[in-house]
Amino acid sequence: MASGMTHPKVGILGGGQLARMLALSGAPLGLRFLVMDNVTDACAGQFAPMVVGDYRDEAALTEFASKVDVATFDFENVPAESAHWLSDRVTVFPNPRALAIAQDRLAEKTLFVELGIPVPPFAAIDTREQLGAALDRIGTPCILKTRRLGYDGKGQASVAPGEDVAAAWERIGALPAILEGRIAFALELSALVVRGPAGELAFYDCPHNTHADGILRRSVVPSGLPEADLARARDIAGTIAAALDYVGVLAVEMFYLGTEAAPEDRLMVNEIAPRVHNSGHWTIEACAISQFENHMRAVAGWPLGSAERHSDAEMVNLIGKEALDWPRLAAEPGACLHLYGKRDARPGRKMGHVTRLFAKTADRV
Amino acid sequence: MASGMTHPKVGILGGGQLARMLALSGAPLGLRFLVMDNVTDACAGQFAPMVVGDYRDEAALTEFASKVDVATFDFENVPAESAHWLSDRVTVFPNPRALAIAQDRLAEKTLFVELGIPVPPFAAIDTREQLGAALDRIGTPCILKTRRLGYDGKGQASVAPGEDVAAAWERIGALPAILEGRIAFALELSALVVRGPAGELAFYDCPHNTHADGILRRSVVPSGLPEADLARARDIAGTIAAALDYVGVLAVEMFYLGTEAAPEDRLMVNEIAPRVHNSGHWTIEACAISQFENHMRAVAGWPLGSAERHSDAEMVNLIGKEALDWPRLAAEPGACLHLYGKRDARPGRKMGHVTRLFAKTADRV
Repeated sequence: MASGMTHPKVGILGGGQLARMLALSGAPLGLRFLVMDNVTDACAGQFAPMVVGDYRDEAALTEFASKVDVATFDFENVPAESAHWLSDRVTVFPNPRALAIAQDRLAEKTLFVELGIPVPPFAAIDTREQLGAALDRIGTPCILKTRRLGYDGKGQASVAPGEDVAAAWERIGALPAILEGRIAFALELSALVVRGPAGELAFYDCPHNTHADGILRRSVVPSGLPEADLARARDIAGTIAAALDYVGVLAVEMFYLGTEAAPEDRLMVNEIAPRVHNSGHWTIEACAISQFENHMRAVAGWPLGSAERHSDAEMVNLIGKEALDWPRLAAEPGACLHLYGKRDARPGRKMGHVTRLFAKTADRV
Repeated sequence: MASGMTHPKVGILGGGQLARMLALSGAPLGLRFLVMDNVTDACAGQFAPMVVGDYRDEAALTEFASKVDVATFDFENVPAESAHWLSDRVTVFPNPRALAIAQDRLAEKTLFVELGIPVPPFAAIDTREQLGAALDRIGTPCILKTRRLGYDGKGQASVAPGEDVAAAWERIGALPAILEGRIAFALELSALVVRGPAGELAFYDCPHNTHADGILRRSVVPSGLPEADLARARDIAGTIAAALDYVGVLAVEMFYLGTEAAPEDRLMVNEIAPRVHNSGHWTIEACAISQFENHMRAVAGWPLGSAERHSDAEMVNLIGKEALDWPRLAAEPGACLHLYGKRDARPGRKMGHVTRLFAKTADRV
């Protein structure tokens, strides 16, 4: 396997903090990068050359494709047709079909059902007329989510008992959506798998994630879940990655219903992210090979590195004006501070994160 | 202390692998960089903007100084007068006096003697006439080293019993030199200290270093030395850093004479490097805060991060054509591969390194 290894020039569509960390983590491998983004001051551009252009701009895409050997994503909402166009010219990892499925909550959930993976009850909503029957079937509390372009809690509206589901649908723009039952979960976790071109898999430990206002706030490893449930989480992620013929890091966000539930009912998949994931940022310091480096290894066709974790870890996001507190975090001796070099600390914007390491404890069983 | 923290633009004189790793390690702090080197393809330029020019070129230095807030070094042989010139315009860390002393083996050794730090016996050589008396005093085996511009074994000539010292002096260019007694040491180690502008200190664990042909091959932590001797090594490094009013990472290379020697005679200082050091590359993976990040913190006026080590580690350099073996190392699952992006694998050239982590063991006492 090692004999054919090369140093491909890696193109990254999207120039946010994920692209920035991909470039910084791939640099030690001797890899070089080209980032494409539609804004000139994308933060990845501070450490990698850029092509500036809209993801639908064929001239910009042509320039990008002419300069790279393999393309990958920092951003899952690159138009699927742009990904297809690119894949006729350069290798694209993950493949455009995987990207397209991850972009559409209905396609995603349909795949999970086909694979026998538990998901919360859901109903497709295309028209106002479908709302009543869907609500009767799913019940309240529930949540309307646009099928496309939702992230960090955007494109979502909750429906409490007695609330008007039509009004909720108007709030998300009356767009094609799914109505999803709200699960009484014990906690949220994510499975982080990396899959290489030959199908080999490596799994990072599943972090316990805490969200607020739909945005990830904190990820902790170990999660404290029973090993059998963690094995099931890894198995689910590996199954999805294989079904998509996926190459790179795939994040699978899950609900954990607690040990009161039967073992086979404890995990339900919420959604997937076809890229390195915020809940895996702790892998930079807590693992010899981070999710970012392993994504680069996979897309470059290199053997995967170990996903083993040498330390316990906590990762906390710095969102909006929280990042103004950075001097306090910089003064905390063991805290690993990450600032993404973004200027405008808008509400809800991910500006940085901090990771703290702790001596490794055995996972609780 | 934290209240006055800012994000200075950091200039780095010299664009080799140390500058490259400084930029990659400082990037997560939100810092930005400008590298100056006299060659256009300096490997740090792959991830930081560059000014290309000779270190004595006032126009290039003027451009460099106009664009940075603080300047530091990847290369200790920047002319002292250029460092002085710069220090009239921007903050320069470490200070030009520290740099000048580290550039001159005689000044360096004279300082160690003044500080009461043991060094191998030495004699200054400025003229051929001094060679005989110096050899009588130092004895053989001994080694002639040019006072200036020596690194990685360059500018050195060994003198075995019965060999012609005048011929050895001719081999090093008949330059101002020191004649140094060859010490029968048990092993070589280095102390890696980082000192902040207010005098605060943090110490990395002292690695056990192995050299071949004057070039570092391997560094290992823990070194296995008794803690009392390691404490003495740290104390020596802190004493030198304080005496130089040093800011940043300072490496102090030492000989360890073994436990048969009296405790106060076990360590002798060989030389200092006024910069991050090859023997500290393992800190990238084995510590939450690496030598590179801590150097950036010191020169930016930020509080130092913890220098604590969470794992045992071994670092092996890839020198010259050894780097062609990179696919085998990339296929070793837990190995952390670093390739510096250099094209020409000339003999003796540092092309990359690999770090392996191991579960932390207590240091042997």
